[in-house]
This record gives sequence, structure tokens and C-alpha cells, in this order.
Amino acid sequence: MKPLSECRVAVIGLGLMGASLCMDLKRRNLCREVRGVTRNFSTILRAFHEDAVDLATTDLSSGVAGADVVILSTPVRAVVTMLETLGPILWPGTVVMDMGSTKAEICAAMDRLPPRVQPIGGHPMTGKETAGYAAAESGLYEGAPWVLTPLPRTTTETVSLASELATSIGAFPITMEAVRHDRLVAAISHLPYLLASGLVHTVKDSGANDAAVWDLAAGGFRDTSRVAASDTQMFLDILMTNRDAVLAQMDTMSGHLQELRMLLADSDEESLRTKLSCSQTTRAAWKPKQGVLASQAK
Amino acid sequence: MKPLSECRVAVIGLGLMGASLCMDLKRRNLCREVRGVTRNFSTILRAFHEDAVDLATTDLSSGVAGADVVILSTPVRAVVTMLETLGPILWPGTVVMDMGSTKAEICAAMDRLPPRVQPIGGHPMTGKETAGYAAAESGLYEGAPWVLTPLPRTTTETVSLASELATSIGAFPITMEAVRHDRLVAAISHLPYLLASGLVHTVKDSGANDAAVWDLAAGGFRDTSRVAASDTQMFLDILMTNRDAVLAQMDTMSGHLQELRMLLADSDEESLRTKLSCSQTTRAAWKPKQGVLASQAK
Repeated sequence: MKPLSECRVAVIGLGLMGASLCMDLKRRNLCREVRGVTRNFSTILRAFHEDAVDLATTDLSSGVAGADVVILSTPVRAVVTMLETLGPILWPGTVVMDMGSTKAEICAAMDRLPPRVQPIGGHPMTGKETAGYAAAESGLYEGAPWVLTPLPRTTTETVSLASELATSIGAFPITMEAVRHDRLVAAISHLPYLLASGLVHTVKDSGANDAAVWDLAAGGFRDTSRVAASDTQMFLDILMTNRDAVLAQMDTMSGHLQELRMLLADSDEESLRTKLSCSQTTRAAWKPKQGVLASQAK
Repeated sequence: MKPLSECRVAVIGLGLMGASLCMDLKRRNLCREVRGVTRNFSTILRAFHEDAVDLATTDLSSGVAGADVVILSTPVRAVVTMLETLGPILWPGTVVMDMGSTKAEICAAMDRLPPRVQPIGGHPMTGKETAGYAAAESGLYEGAPWVLTPLPRTTTETVSLASELATSIGAFPITMEAVRHDRLVAAISHLPYLLASGLVHTVKDSGANDAAVWDLAAGGFRDTSRVAASDTQMFLDILMTNRDAVLAQMDTMSGHLQELRMLLADSDEESLRTKLSCSQTTRAAWKPKQGVLASQAK
């Protein structure tokens, strides 16, 4: 298999994730050609103008024709649908990757691709609460974990190429099974999103009685609620394709909240101290993997 | 009443909040004298060495003797206890402020001070998840809301002096009643803390089954859980002195989480979209009051 430097790479979807990837690949001259495929013609003009692509098109067929690597960068369920469309038109030997936030349904759809193409799931663990091409930036992937979920049919060469791509833009690849990935991100990504949404609703209820709550809201609220501003369609797709794992995490969380509520209602201060100390110690000891803090403190 | 520039200011408690205040007052030369009172002798040495105080002592009586302004900067219940000790020894005309995160119990204790002193409650809405003198820094209050909760006995001159102090170090004062303050911060500060604690416990449970969850945790988890690392004693005091308001916010939050859970379990995608879009729009439209972002993105 060719090294990344000799590959034509087609990125489908020029939102935050796809366009940031194009910018890194193009501006750092990491591959032979960077193509962007988007439904939005004004995005094409902007991507050309900002040196994010070598070629860009609204036409999927011409976008993927002759590409060595095709990277799907749309919301999860659009990836699943797109894989059905792509199956018949991909050239033999094409590596098909994606950047979706849940992996089991995507990898199942990838497994239905014709045998002549090489699929591998992927999920770079970075992002921002702002979406779309306008939010894209070089260096978004610097220091981020990039989960790769190979299928049984995925060759080691394909895993190597995907790892090379992730590494080339500063991410560090972690390989695991799709179902395991989905279970883990339910806890550290999908649950926090739902908590943030619930918190915003709660403060909104409070604000309906006394709007001054919005003036007092400071760093704690800002950080705890940040991900609630994420793209709704993206998260709907995530939740609907990872429902059972998310529900399980919500139930575990509810148990902890009920316990905290009970301890506080009972003024059981020593038990409350023990429980809060445990989360204090755990959170204070946790460090994001290399560079995640640097790349995402924006 | 004297202007701030002619006041001797004694700060009791040289943790994150108190020491940061001393640094600003001293290094910017904002008052006649800055005194620090702390139980920890090594903190005294450090505060002198780093030009955070003019005088420092472990002795409360000599620390407040002749001070024009005494600012209590300890956990909430320590403030309440300290006010009882201070009552008999404060000089006539002393302005007594505090920086505690809940105000009703503190203001009730302030009201029991002798008539010869002038009390006013205060709560600068800033901070970090790290505690203690070592975490203190100049500029911590830049751009932060600083709630002032005057008592019925508090004179307008005292409110003016407290406002001048807050403004002099870059905060912006907001005056309101203590009970109203406590109700509002239950939603935007105390609830987020409990959510962060519950989230850390949930991820810890997940990590007990599969430790890789800690490797994947990135920006979403980092921000949503940050405040869980806050000082446990500080938050225990907050929760125990604002119990009813916190319980009410927890119940509202639980209602929203239950609704989100039900919509997801039922795959009621349109209702889920409506609810998530509402929090998306609300959070994306919210901007912290002037400068809060800048001062706290650390």
C-alpha cells in the first residue's frame, strides 16, 4: 500500500472536523492531493480560497474517483447512508475511513461494502462546541486521541495507513473494537452532553423566575454547560446510534445523583464528605492524554 | 468614611481567594496597608516573600487591631464561627466583609455583630478548581461579577467602599439580597458541582470495568467535570448552608434528565431534537458578563 505522501485523499463533508483535517493535510503537504466534497458551493469557494484543498466538488462520484483514501466526515447516520451510496462507485483498493462519534453502526455498514475496498472506522476525540466550516482550524487534532476501529476484514496495511494519517497531524491512534469504543464514549462524552443539556434547561427554568441568574453565571456554569452548545443533529445521531450504552450511563449517573441528594437532604455530612472527596481526588489526579488540554483549551 | 486608598485592609485566610485579593491590593498599591491573617506560618513567610502583604500574623486579634476593613476569606462555616470571635474585638467603625459562596447564614451572623461595626456580605464569582495560597494569583478577579449583599443595617457608605474595592481589582459589583443570591448560585454553581461529582463517579465506575475510558476522556469530560476537583471542605460548607435551594435545583435537574432519558429510550427523535435544540440555542446565545471568559480560561 502507498504511503500517505503518495495518496489522493478525499474528505466528504467540510464541517468542523472534515475541513480542519483538509487544512492540516493540505497546508502541511502531507499527501499527494486533498479533495473536499461538500453539498455547499460557497464552502467550496472558501476552501479553495483558504488553501484547504487541492480540488473540491459537490459531486460525490467525481470526488471519490481515483481517490486512494476516502474519509467520511458527516454526522453518524449520514455516514451510514453515504456508505451505501459509495459501495458501487469506489475504486478497487480504496481505503474508506470515517470520523463519526459512534462506531458500531458505522462499522456494520462498512462491512457491507464490496470486498474490493478496505474499510476502517475512526473517531478523533477532539472538537469544539461550534460547528461547520467556519469553525475549522489547522491543528485541531494536535494531541488528541484518535480511536481506530478496524473490522475483521481490515488489513494491517490499512490500520498502518490510518495510524500514519492520524499521527501525521499530531493525534495519537488508539485501536479498539467498535462496541468497546461506543461503551466508553457513552460515559465520557455522551453522558456529559446530556448533563450539560439538562443543566442549561435547569438554569433556564431558574432564569424564567429571575433573569439575574444569567449575570451571575461564571466559570463553573460556562465549563459544565459548554458542550450543550454542540451541533444538535450531530448529537442526535450519536444518541440514536448508541442508545443502550447511553441509557446505562444515565442510570449509573442517576444513582450517584440520588445518593448525593439523599446525603444532603439527611445532612449526613460525613458520608457526603467521603463521596465528594472521592470524586475530588479522582478528578484532581486525572490528566488528559498528551496534549489534549493544550489543543482544546480554546 | 475613608476612601480605599487610606484604609488598612486585613484579609483573614490566605487561600486562593484571600491571597489573590492581597496580591492585587498590595502590588497595585490600592490601599494604605494590606495585612494577612493565617494559621499557617509558612504561608506568612511566602506572602511576605512574594510581596502579597505589608504585614502578616497568625494572631487574629493583632491582625484586626486598627484595621479599617476586615475581609473574611475562609470556607463559609468558618466565616460564621469567626464572626462570633471577631464581634468583641473589632474596633469601632470597622467594615466587615467576606467572600463566602453562600450568603444567608453569613449575613445572619453578621447581623449579630455589635452595632459599632459595619457588615456587608460579598461573593466574588470566580475561582479555580485548585485551592490554597499556592493557587493564588494577581488578576483573579478581573472581569468577575462580585455580588454584594448588604444588611438592613449596612450604610450606603459601606456599600460604596465595598464596591470601590471590587471595582479597583477589576470585578464588577452586583448588589442583591442574600437569600436571592443563594437561590441563584444553587443553579449555576452548586448544582454544576454536584453534577461534576456524579459524572466523575460514573466514569470511575466505568473505569473499574475498562480503564481505557481514562485514555479516551478528552475536552468534553475535562470541562464538564472540572469543578469536581474543587476543595471538598469549601463545597461541603456551601452545600450545608444552602441545602434547600440546592435540593430544589437537583430536583429540577432530575426532571430534565428523566425526560431526556425517556425520549431516548422511546426513540422519540422529534421531541428529543426539540429539547436538545432548546438547550443548544440557549447555551450558544449565552455570553458571560464582561471578561469572565478571559479571566477564567486558565
